[in-house]
Amino acid sequence: MVSENTQRLTIGVDLGGTNLRVAAYTAETGVLESMVLRTRLEECPLTVVDDMCGAIQQLLDKHLDGRVLAGIGIGSPGPLELPAGRLHHPPNLPGWDGFGLLDAMQERLGRPVLLESDANVAVLAEYALGLGKELGVDSLCMLTLGTGVGNGIILDGKLWHGAAGMGGEAGHMTVLPDGPECGCGSHGCLEVCASATAVVKAAERLLADGKAPGLARLKEEKTRFTAQNLAEAARAGDPDAQQIYEETGRALGLCLAGLVNILNLPLYVVGGGVANSWDLLSPSLFKELESRSYVYALTAPDRAASHGMPGGGTRVLPARLGAEAGLLGACILPFYSTEREDVRAAVTAR
Amino acid sequence: MVSENTQRLTIGVDLGGTNLRVAAYTAETGVLESMVLRTRLEECPLTVVDDMCGAIQQLLDKHLDGRVLAGIGIGSPGPLELPAGRLHHPPNLPGWDGFGLLDAMQERLGRPVLLESDANVAVLAEYALGLGKELGVDSLCMLTLGTGVGNGIILDGKLWHGAAGMGGEAGHMTVLPDGPECGCGSHGCLEVCASATAVVKAAERLLADGKAPGLARLKEEKTRFTAQNLAEAARAGDPDAQQIYEETGRALGLCLAGLVNILNLPLYVVGGGVANSWDLLSPSLFKELESRSYVYALTAPDRAASHGMPGGGTRVLPARLGAEAGLLGACILPFYSTEREDVRAAVTAR
Repeated sequence: MVSENTQRLTIGVDLGGTNLRVAAYTAETGVLESMVLRTRLEECPLTVVDDMCGAIQQLLDKHLDGRVLAGIGIGSPGPLELPAGRLHHPPNLPGWDGFGLLDAMQERLGRPVLLESDANVAVLAEYALGLGKELGVDSLCMLTLGTGVGNGIILDGKLWHGAAGMGGEAGHMTVLPDGPECGCGSHGCLEVCASATAVVKAAERLLADGKAPGLARLKEEKTRFTAQNLAEAARAGDPDAQQIYEETGRALGLCLAGLVNILNLPLYVVGGGVANSWDLLSPSLFKELESRSYVYALTAPDRAASHGMPGGGTRVLPARLGAEAGLLGACILPFYSTEREDVRAAVTAR
Repeated sequence: MVSENTQRLTIGVDLGGTNLRVAAYTAETGVLESMVLRTRLEECPLTVVDDMCGAIQQLLDKHLDGRVLAGIGIGSPGPLELPAGRLHHPPNLPGWDGFGLLDAMQERLGRPVLLESDANVAVLAEYALGLGKELGVDSLCMLTLGTGVGNGIILDGKLWHGAAGMGGEAGHMTVLPDGPECGCGSHGCLEVCASATAVVKAAERLLADGKAPGLARLKEEKTRFTAQNLAEAARAGDPDAQQIYEETGRALGLCLAGLVNILNLPLYVVGGGVANSWDLLSPSLFKELESRSYVYALTAPDRAASHGMPGGGTRVLPARLGAEAGLLGACILPFYSTEREDVRAAVTAR
């Protein structure tokens, strides 16, 4: 018998192309302990599975004492076929095409495991612990601008998976039909226009064309571009860096305009490292969004009420949870899976 | 007491910018009788409301006898704010901005009325009586290529309304960022690239540029272009008409690629007059869709199984119901509203 006062423990895993992070979590305390390991992509996928299982077991041995295990949640790079839990040509896990991650984890652990894409666990965290909770909305769409662009969608409190678990790939929506080539085979996807990688590549292109003297100096000084040092240059007044962020905002606004027109959700969240430059990209983002989406123009927060629209209108905001969203989302995934209607209540209990 | 054998009657209204069509319907027989009236846009909206109510009353007087009224459904041009039932700058009902259609209808009739956008009743009809029923899918997205481009989305058996009833406006998704101006204020929306109006305008542009001698002869002969006579010209071998349809298909493919990437539904349906030229537009549509959506490339019907995907994969098909979809959808709207879980069973009973 489990007493009502018994704490429920979860283990969350954030599997990334560079690191894998594993945490022990309770609703009462939040993260009890977290570990970071390198993702050994030079080995076969089963070695990485063993690394994850080892870390999970370590945290279980240490923190299960007196608690009941509510579940183990994993956020994985996509594309991830669900419910099979199989990866399809994941760009950030080279060599893992066709790998049955869910089965492998369950077999090694001898326990059931919950698996979602990294973008889905991130949006789940924003829903239950971040902006979704703060604003009290049941539907939201999140774009995570990192190395690539992740996308997770929650509709009426449920993760939208689509028919094969591949819904929420707005990172590969075309924003510039003749834009740069994307790893997915298309051209001008949001991912090649607004990811951290895209920001750096845009600066490299300017340099290769012999333009942007300020950026040439920046590169000499820093040895390489990052989305962050380019943002600092923009804030310090470099016009080329400013223009790169302006174009990033425009691409994002164009994509969001499509998402607003299609889904008309109350909340769109932009996360990932590039979202730290909200000050630089949001002016062009909102200008593009206004002109590209009459639904947004009618339902923007400052005029939704005058059009008789409910609630606070269509909100587009930078994420609240930052880089921890993926790990937190993996940690609360077991609560979502067993108490879908009430995941927010479950994880916010103190 | 209503006996189990008492037939349930519905009245459906398809309010269009040119005509309004009203029908009496039972699940057992289908449409019992339908009437077509001109939509008197030169009068005030309340006059049109009176025309609709008069026709509804006429059909009720004639067909209610021995039956029970299950409800009255209306499909209206959008943008339509729901649940308020108020129109916002509807391009096909000039002068109706801000008009509270739902309240006006209920007041005049003295009865409750169910109101949805024309695109939503059309997708409901395809879901319950058309391709959705035939293929047994619970989620689908429909694009109706007519004067404008309508869009309706059903997710897990429910019409997706979004926060203000304005979900499903994929007709205003940008496909060509620098494309022609759209009535919504943006540029290069699907509506200005793939509607019947867009097909005609593309031909007019070629003519104005002094190109397309075959189309010049066609216009002389027919006095004006229509999407249909341009399709006939394309089938008869006119290269310019063929190119217009090829570009229409490409725009449609680009928009569908976004919808497949975002929603990953099992079925996308293309309806409206332009869909009658499926033979002309589908080759470029599928070519664009394949290259723009890796989700489609993985889940297309001919290879979904080899990727372990469930069911028949992602199907993109021309609509089954044709021009009657809007009226039929309005007729079955009362069944959907009362028996959501089982609207298909309700309306297909014979």
